[in-house]
This record gives sequence, C-alpha cells and structure tokens, in this order.
Amino acid sequence: MKKEKDSELMEKIVALCKRRGFVYPSSEIYGGLAGIWDYGPLGVELRHNIKQHFWNKFIAERDDVYGMSAAILMPARVWEASGHTDSFSDPLVECKICHSRIRADQTDIIAEHEAIHAKKKEKVEWSEPKVFNLLVETHLGAVEDEKSLAYLRGEITQGVHVNFKNIIDSMHPKLPFGIGQIGKAFRNEITPGNFLFRQREFEQMELQYYVKPDEKEPKEWFEYWKQFAFDWYLSLGFKKEHLRLRQHAEDERAHYAKDAWDIEYNTSFGGWKEAWGIHHRGDWDLRRHSEYSKVDLSYFDEEAKKRYIPFDIECSGGVDRAVLFVLLEAYAEDELGGEPRVYLKLSKNIAPVRAAVFPLLKNKPELVAKAREVYKNLKKTISSIQFDDNGNIGKRYRRQDEIGTPFCITIDFETLEDDTVTLRDRDTGEQRRVAVNDLSKEIK
Amino acid sequence: MKKEKDSELMEKIVALCKRRGFVYPSSEIYGGLAGIWDYGPLGVELRHNIKQHFWNKFIAERDDVYGMSAAILMPARVWEASGHTDSFSDPLVECKICHSRIRADQTDIIAEHEAIHAKKKEKVEWSEPKVFNLLVETHLGAVEDEKSLAYLRGEITQGVHVNFKNIIDSMHPKLPFGIGQIGKAFRNEITPGNFLFRQREFEQMELQYYVKPDEKEPKEWFEYWKQFAFDWYLSLGFKKEHLRLRQHAEDERAHYAKDAWDIEYNTSFGGWKEAWGIHHRGDWDLRRHSEYSKVDLSYFDEEAKKRYIPFDIECSGGVDRAVLFVLLEAYAEDELGGEPRVYLKLSKNIAPVRAAVFPLLKNKPELVAKAREVYKNLKKTISSIQFDDNGNIGKRYRRQDEIGTPFCITIDFETLEDDTVTLRDRDTGEQRRVAVNDLSKEIK
Repeated sequence: MKKEKDSELMEKIVALCKRRGFVYPSSEIYGGLAGIWDYGPLGVELRHNIKQHFWNKFIAERDDVYGMSAAILMPARVWEASGHTDSFSDPLVECKICHSRIRADQTDIIAEHEAIHAKKKEKVEWSEPKVFNLLVETHLGAVEDEKSLAYLRGEITQGVHVNFKNIIDSMHPKLPFGIGQIGKAFRNEITPGNFLFRQREFEQMELQYYVKPDEKEPKEWFEYWKQFAFDWYLSLGFKKEHLRLRQHAEDERAHYAKDAWDIEYNTSFGGWKEAWGIHHRGDWDLRRHSEYSKVDLSYFDEEAKKRYIPFDIECSGGVDRAVLFVLLEAYAEDELGGEPRVYLKLSKNIAPVRAAVFPLLKNKPELVAKAREVYKNLKKTISSIQFDDNGNIGKRYRRQDEIGTPFCITIDFETLEDDTVTLRDRDTGEQRRVAVNDLSKEIK
Repeated sequence: MKKEKDSELMEKIVALCKRRGFVYPSSEIYGGLAGIWDYGPLGVELRHNIKQHFWNKFIAERDDVYGMSAAILMPARVWEASGHTDSFSDPLVECKICHSRIRADQTDIIAEHEAIHAKKKEKVEWSEPKVFNLLVETHLGAVEDEKSLAYLRGEITQGVHVNFKNIIDSMHPKLPFGIGQIGKAFRNEITPGNFLFRQREFEQMELQYYVKPDEKEPKEWFEYWKQFAFDWYLSLGFKKEHLRLRQHAEDERAHYAKDAWDIEYNTSFGGWKEAWGIHHRGDWDLRRHSEYSKVDLSYFDEEAKKRYIPFDIECSGGVDRAVLFVLLEAYAEDELGGEPRVYLKLSKNIAPVRAAVFPLLKNKPELVAKAREVYKNLKKTISSIQFDDNGNIGKRYRRQDEIGTPFCITIDFETLEDDTVTLRDRDTGEQRRVAVNDLSKEIK
C-alpha cells in the first residue's frame, strides 16, 4: 500500500469509531488524556467478544489452565523483583531551553524539535540521556510517605506469578499447567500514539504456562503455544498473509526472555507491528519472586520426587491492539447498487451486532409489529440483535454495513403471507428469502 | 445472630476463599496491600457470572440501554466538576507524637491510640481535623508537573456522564434511555476492611438512566429501577428477608442526590450494609460537566421541540460486595451421612462450577474413559464443568459441596450397561439415576 493511503485509512477508522460508537477519545469534553480511549456501545461489544474468545480457547475449554484476576495495584517490591524498576524504562534527553523530554532514540522527533527552536534563532543543547521509568506510580493509605508507594501494574503477568503458590495450594495442579487472566495494565509511555496501538491504559490477555525445566518440554510447549496463539489470532478474521511469526533478535529480547517470538500484523500505518508475544521466560519470574519475597515458589514433582522451579512459557496479547488490528483488517470500501459504500468485514463470531431486523416500511403498523415479533424471538437465542426502523431501507443497510453487521433481516408484505423474510449478506449485498423459523440457524 | 458467631462466619469465609481458590490477599508473598484482593480460579468465575447477569438484565436484553466502558484514568478537572475534589473526603486528625492519621469520627480508634501512648507515659495531642481526599492520584507524561495530574476514577459514574454527548451523537437515542458499564474504581479508604466489603480497588456495575426533567417521569422511573434492582439482587440467590430497601435520611445523601435508596443486606459482620444504591441525581452531573467543560450537554427533544438537560436515575452496585454477600448468604454447615460438612448454597445460575463428573473408581480404566466421555460431551453445551478423580468419592463430594457445585455426576458400572449415571443434589445429598442423554437438560 502507498503511504498516503495508509495514514488515510487510520484516520478513516478513528472517525468511523467515533461516529458509530466504537471508541471515543477519553474524557473528551475536557481535552482528554493522551494515549487513553473510552469504548462506546459497539466497541465494548467487539472488545468483549474478542476477550471472551480468548477466555474460552485459552482457559475455559481446557483442563490444564486456570483463570484468575489479580488487582491492578501492586507493591513496589513486586516490580523490583520482576526487574521492571531497573529495566522497564526509556532513556530520554531533555532540551535545555524548554525542558521538553524526548526519547533518545527518536532522531526524527529530536530533529523536528531542534528545527522549532532554530526558527526562533535558538540552538538546542541536550542533556545526557536519562532513564525515565514507564511504571505509573501512586500512593496509598492515609499518610503519603515512602511506605505506601504502589504501582499500577505495568503488565498483568506479575499478578499470576505472585499467586503461583496460592494456585498450587488451592487447586493442586500437576505440571504442565497454565494460569491465564485478562486485565488492564498501565505504562507511562513517552510517545503514545497510533490510536489503540500504544496507549497508557490498555488491556492484556495472557497465559503463563508452567512446564518442567528440562531440555525437551519447554521447547515442545513453546512450539505448541506459538502455533496455538497464531491459529487463535487468525480466527479473529485475518488473512493468513497479513500475519507472521517473527523471532526476536538476541539484542531485542526482554531481560527475562530465553527465546521470544512475536505474531505481527502488517498494519497500514507502519508495516509489521507486534500483535502478540510468545516468550520463554525460563524460571526468571518465580526465581526472582522467591528471592525477593523469601517465599519458596518451587513445585514438588510427585513422580520424580523432587522440587524445582518450573519454566514459564508465556502467551501475551494486547486486547485494544487486537480491536484495532481487527478493524484495520475489516475496513473495506466498494460500490454497491451504483453507490460507494463503507463496510466492516468483521467475522460473524466477533461482530458487535450479529443481525439487524427491519420492517420494510416504518409507517405500516402490521410490518412493524411483525418485525418486532421476529426481533424478540431471535433475541432469545442470539445476543446482540438490533431493531432499526429509522430512515429508508437503503440507509439502514448502509448503517449496518458500516458497523459490520453480518446479516440484515427485512420483514415485508410477503412475510405476512408466508412467514419468510429477506436475509441480506453484508459482504455481497445479496438477498434471499428464508423462513422465519430457520433464521436462528442461518445466522449461527 | 450472636456476635461471636458472626465474626466467626467471616473468618470461615475468608479461609474457605483462600483454601479453595476464590479470593487471595493481593500480592500476598510481599505482605500485600491493605484493602486489595486477588481473585483465584473459582472467584473469577463467580464474579464473572454476577457481572454477566448484570450486563444481560440491565443492558443487553433491553432496547433502551447502551453499554460502554470508559478508562480508569481521568483528568483532575472531571472530579472538580463532579464535586468529588471538594466533598469526597474524610476529615482526619493527626497524632502530634507519631503523626498517625485517624478519621475524626472514629472515637473508638482514637481512644485506643491514646491508650497506646499512655502506656509509654505520653499524652496525645491531636491536630485540628484535616480533610483527606479519597481520590487516588497519579501523574502521567514525561514531565511530572501539575499539568499531568490524573486521578484513578473514584466512581465509574463520571465515565458515563462525560461521554453523554458522544453517545447521543453516535447512537441517536430517544429519552428515556440508559447507559451502563462495569469497571474498576479506586478510593484511598482510610479504613478498608471486612474482606471484600470496603476495598481500595473495587469493581462497580452501574446504570445511568436519563429521563425527561419534569415532575412525573423521574419519580416513576425511580420507582421502576428501585424495584428492578431489588428483584435483580434477589435473583442472585438471597432470601427476601435478608434484603431490604431503605431511604437515605436527608443528611445522609450525597451532594448530588435528590432522593436516594439503598438495597441493604443483613450481614453477619455488622447488620444491614449497603449492597446497591438507587439515586435520583437530577441534572447535577450533566449540568456541572456542561459548566466546567464549556461543552453543551443538553438533549434536544424532537417532539417537544426544546432543549433541556435530562435528569439521571442511577443504579449502582459493588461487584466485589455482591460476591461477598452471595458467599455470606450461601455458606452453610450441616450433617450428612453422619458427618459434618460445609457447603455453599450458591444459585446454579452463578455457581463457578455448574457440575462435576467423577468415575466411581479411579483405578478402573473403563470407568475413567466413560467419565471422560460424559465430561467432554457435557462441556460442549455447559461451561464450567469439572472432572475429578482425586481421592475417594466421598471426599470428592465434600470438595464440590464446599465450592457450591450444584450437581455431581458419577459414572459407575451400571453406566457401562445402561448409560445412566447418578446425579447428586448438593443441598439434599440425594442421588437419583439419570440417562446420560438427559444430563444437559437436568443441569440447565
């Protein structure tokens, strides 16, 4: 794709999201907070469907994975143990004229900044790069002293590791087993941007899968979860050629990683971007937490009759990022019936509205009544059905296309005679007659 | 109930929650954070079922309510407008000897504190009461100055009000209509306590229902939502006599409330406690946000051809509090087969495990294989099924009783002959034979 077209696509999606109730700038009437977004009525459903799909496949349908949900606030000591206090940071340089801080590796933004001052005949001098920690901090308790320092978690991962012993003691799992959760994390990103891609408040969906720390098992499970995560991501509705698996180079890996792969999506705004990580974290987290907390986080292997700290294979994905990539992938423009249209080719498993029901004409009470009846009955078995009698039928179709509704059901005069309706397919615009009684089956 | 018995019950529930994987103290291996808890594998399911039940009844099944999900971080100005910066606070007194701060109205804790110093022959002098704001604050951005002050929301309510215009513009709703959401909120409580009852990090489920600001409509809708919320709360599995509706006295109401009622639960730890609030907020929030943001948050009434700021009837409940009250209500002890047992009488709609499947004997491969088959088939239609072949059958029953599993299914030698199993009822312990093919229907 051409660069012009790419930035246009992002703008179109941001505008569509606001116009149709997917995503709004956060606290917008007050100018908002950079890098933070609010989900509207349709966005919250789309996001929920993605999260539920993760929960089903990675946790609920499996016998070897437990779900949990840790708190957002965690003591500072957790992040010393995890290594984030030291390494979870970007070196910044400070402009000695205006004290702006810019990430030291962003040479284009540095040059731009220098140019601004140059216009005012000023010459920028920069400070030495200084580390700025990405963890968002707060204070708890009635006295605001050092004791009560707490961090909003920078990743949900640590909430699982610090509960490893609790899960062992209450669930008595046998290795290999996993612990998964979904929840919000916070990072004081210096340069949030690209809509939902890099936010300061964001949601993660993760699995920590603990395996025997030998030579063979971690490698096998790493391959297993790499493939599992890739297939899962694909099932959100991506074309295979738009996703790839890429191994991290050695100098690119996080401080804890023995091996790391990303699932990347070929975005329109900047090429291949991280969608999901599969990390071989080794025994880093449990070992460090054992050391820092002085609580033994080893596992007793009943078969081998020995104690060891398991290795951890992590699957970690951004929820908001998945929402963004799904929207980028689904956005389409074409011509239908001689008129241009915009539509979202969302997979019917995650579309926020599964089907919409219309009376052909809104001033015919018998059609409206019948449409209401069909709507009510469908709603019993399928969630997220919409009723719409605003404007003419063409406008309603376009509205549903734009929010990615896979099916539109129209009640017309024929319906009153033979209990059939027209079922319209979003992508082709084709309509066919279907018996009211078959609707639920057709849509599922 | 007697006081001794009451505090015992709470202790028993906290212990059961930890032992069986419902709720753990947060970041426990590091000593935790006061007033913050983590949810384990069973707790997260119980909490999810309660939230989903709220979402279905208050939002998804209705045509007049939209769902949404606002961010946790919001700019300081939001809380000035909402009145929280001024009024959301407790007056504290400070001990001039050790600088401890204690809520000025807690005379018993003040007396206790004085006694501690008295033992050391010290006489406490107290500072004048000083207001301490309950909002949890943080700083965002690369430069930690005043500009970047943000609060972790003290209630999820304001996330709805600040998006009122966005929802109007994207969804074009007609009054009356509601906006609902579920999400975390944070309060720097001086005295968190009573397990999940008063936390510093907690989850809320809320509906803001906007109505025409005349004499009649707000009153009618207030009555409607009072009853609706009461019935919904009851449906979580409470005895009617354990819940009540109580009107706030005039001096008890929040700064925004024209009328306020609480649904209260008769707790074992301290009598009637707030479970849910129904508040007539009038036009307080939208009017204040209009003033502070300079954005017009009025609604244009097409029928009456006039603009006005609607009134807001709010339904607001604590999610964690609902989990706690459900557990307090469900906890039971009795004798079964001559032995004492503990069980949770959880409603089968919200129980974290809906049914458990056992082979009668775990060393008979044909029974285990058949049990696995029954388990797998059931899992296709019912989520949250457990398979258990640990220990003897009596122990497995007790384990399931303790986590509130409504049904236990045992595969025995008869199953291999006629495809029937025993279905055991949690509350009575009674067993009856049921055909494998009827299991799904029986459990639902």
